[in-house]
Amino acid sequence: MTSGDGNLSPEDSLIARHFRPLATHSAARGLMDDAAVLAASGDDLVVTTDAIVEGVHFLPDDPPDTIARKALRVNLSDLAAKGARPSGFVLTLALREVRDEFLAPFARALGEDIAAFDCALLGGDMVATSGPLMISITAFGTVAPGRAVARRGAGVGDAIFVTGTIGDAALGLDLLKRNLNVESVHRNALIDRYRVPQPRTALADAVRDHASAAMDVSDGLAGDLAKLCAASGVSATVDAASVPLSDAARSTLQSGQTDLSRLLTGGDDYEILCTIPQNQREAFQAAADAAKVAVCGIGRIVAGDQPPVLLDSSGTPMVLKRPSYSHF
Amino acid sequence: MTSGDGNLSPEDSLIARHFRPLATHSAARGLMDDAAVLAASGDDLVVTTDAIVEGVHFLPDDPPDTIARKALRVNLSDLAAKGARPSGFVLTLALREVRDEFLAPFARALGEDIAAFDCALLGGDMVATSGPLMISITAFGTVAPGRAVARRGAGVGDAIFVTGTIGDAALGLDLLKRNLNVESVHRNALIDRYRVPQPRTALADAVRDHASAAMDVSDGLAGDLAKLCAASGVSATVDAASVPLSDAARSTLQSGQTDLSRLLTGGDDYEILCTIPQNQREAFQAAADAAKVAVCGIGRIVAGDQPPVLLDSSGTPMVLKRPSYSHF
Repeated sequence: MTSGDGNLSPEDSLIARHFRPLATHSAARGLMDDAAVLAASGDDLVVTTDAIVEGVHFLPDDPPDTIARKALRVNLSDLAAKGARPSGFVLTLALREVRDEFLAPFARALGEDIAAFDCALLGGDMVATSGPLMISITAFGTVAPGRAVARRGAGVGDAIFVTGTIGDAALGLDLLKRNLNVESVHRNALIDRYRVPQPRTALADAVRDHASAAMDVSDGLAGDLAKLCAASGVSATVDAASVPLSDAARSTLQSGQTDLSRLLTGGDDYEILCTIPQNQREAFQAAADAAKVAVCGIGRIVAGDQPPVLLDSSGTPMVLKRPSYSHF
Repeated sequence: MTSGDGNLSPEDSLIARHFRPLATHSAARGLMDDAAVLAASGDDLVVTTDAIVEGVHFLPDDPPDTIARKALRVNLSDLAAKGARPSGFVLTLALREVRDEFLAPFARALGEDIAAFDCALLGGDMVATSGPLMISITAFGTVAPGRAVARRGAGVGDAIFVTGTIGDAALGLDLLKRNLNVESVHRNALIDRYRVPQPRTALADAVRDHASAAMDVSDGLAGDLAKLCAASGVSATVDAASVPLSDAARSTLQSGQTDLSRLLTGGDDYEILCTIPQNQREAFQAAADAAKVAVCGIGRIVAGDQPPVLLDSSGTPMVLKRPSYSHF
């Protein structure tokens, strides 16, 4: 994402108008160079990349400001789950056409999130496509050397925690796709959870200090826990009734318009899933309280190489149709 | 681009099969985590991101191995122009469908370039699209602190150099789109230049040590020089007859099947354009010779804020229809 001052092409001109005002960090070189330069620091750099695609990760009529926020926040969620603080990102936009009505609110919301999460726009690329809109972001975070938290590392006996509430975004997507009989206040809350993830950036230090393993929940709690367990060479037992649900999700569940399986496998939660050694539980809970991020114990790590077992309220293992979202 | 060992989804499975074998660097964590971790080093990190889109940057029937190489190499070209050595990259693939016939040669060629350019695959993302294929890469390079070369920095009197030859890729694209009467040996050479850029990685140290400003030529020499001049607050005079051309391009030009304007504005060259202070010329030329990269002086930086003037062989300023490629 570069533009000179002379001979502005259409994309140079819109980059200058919409995005250069956001790129205030010196490393971005005012988006007037071919690359950003991150000055050497004593920290490790955590790098994550996630793309969102129209019709897959967001809907064609989602508001542009929510699309911008989602594109950045799904990446911030990954950084938080590794215990890293956001530092910056590069942005690739694939657009069918250049329209100010899209780009102005998109850039404005992006600018607000850049400020809110202290994550600098460092550069990017803009390309034309005849297909769905796509926003690809590579984000960078810093963490003290050797302290990034991995998926691998969960130990037998560790407690399994998740942040926030699970399943809201999947219900929000369901509501956007078909009519459910849900009170409007709940409806709005669930749709908002689908469109605008809440990355748990405030919990990053607590994860770094206390978690044995962590990842963010993007493809469904059940499937993502299976991945964490596989990477760690362990299994898990989860008390499904203890998985934290929002009032809106609980109400929809109780009215019979969804089932727990949908909530546990739906994806788009962007909550942190982590394992906490028993001797760290109190300290982790205290750090989470101090960070004002709700965390909830949902089970424990056990020995074995089987997929995690989710027990329903009667203590019976649940059978999940599709444990994890798949793109293909 | 992550995959656990249990419950492999289709995309996890193909990531494991095609890409995990390429991700041998420890920072990639075997593509089994949400993020890569670059250990703290004493160097600055140069970050660049460029996407290539089917029908825009490559053609639907280009061989998969050339698509992989182009996706990585357009980014390696940016790193070289900043004086940085490649260290790693993350890859986002947007695919319509998962086909081994595409992914196997794609991954094999990518693996060869990873080894050839010593640039590690660190992670990625794979998403479904109904539109054109798109490969977005964010690449990282290292350079000694404060030594990355900018577009801004060209000084009045500096010599303007380019590497390799200019205009071949534009002619290669012309040949793929319409029939020109060109000898087959030239035809193949020009098409290869379009499909498989040759990043001037070997020249990175010389650029770092001797250039006052540099960028890679991706959108046409004339337009890119205009951007470099605008960023530096200077103008330039170029002797168009001195711009280095390949035998294939010269032959096509002499037969009247293209014109110099097309060669100077066509794009996809992925050569390095740089400015060299007069007292550095000899040392730069010697370093380029040692690196076995052909470099050629084509003009000089002059004072002013006008776009660069390209003089034809009679000394008359050329009038270019479209100085630079635009996507929109």
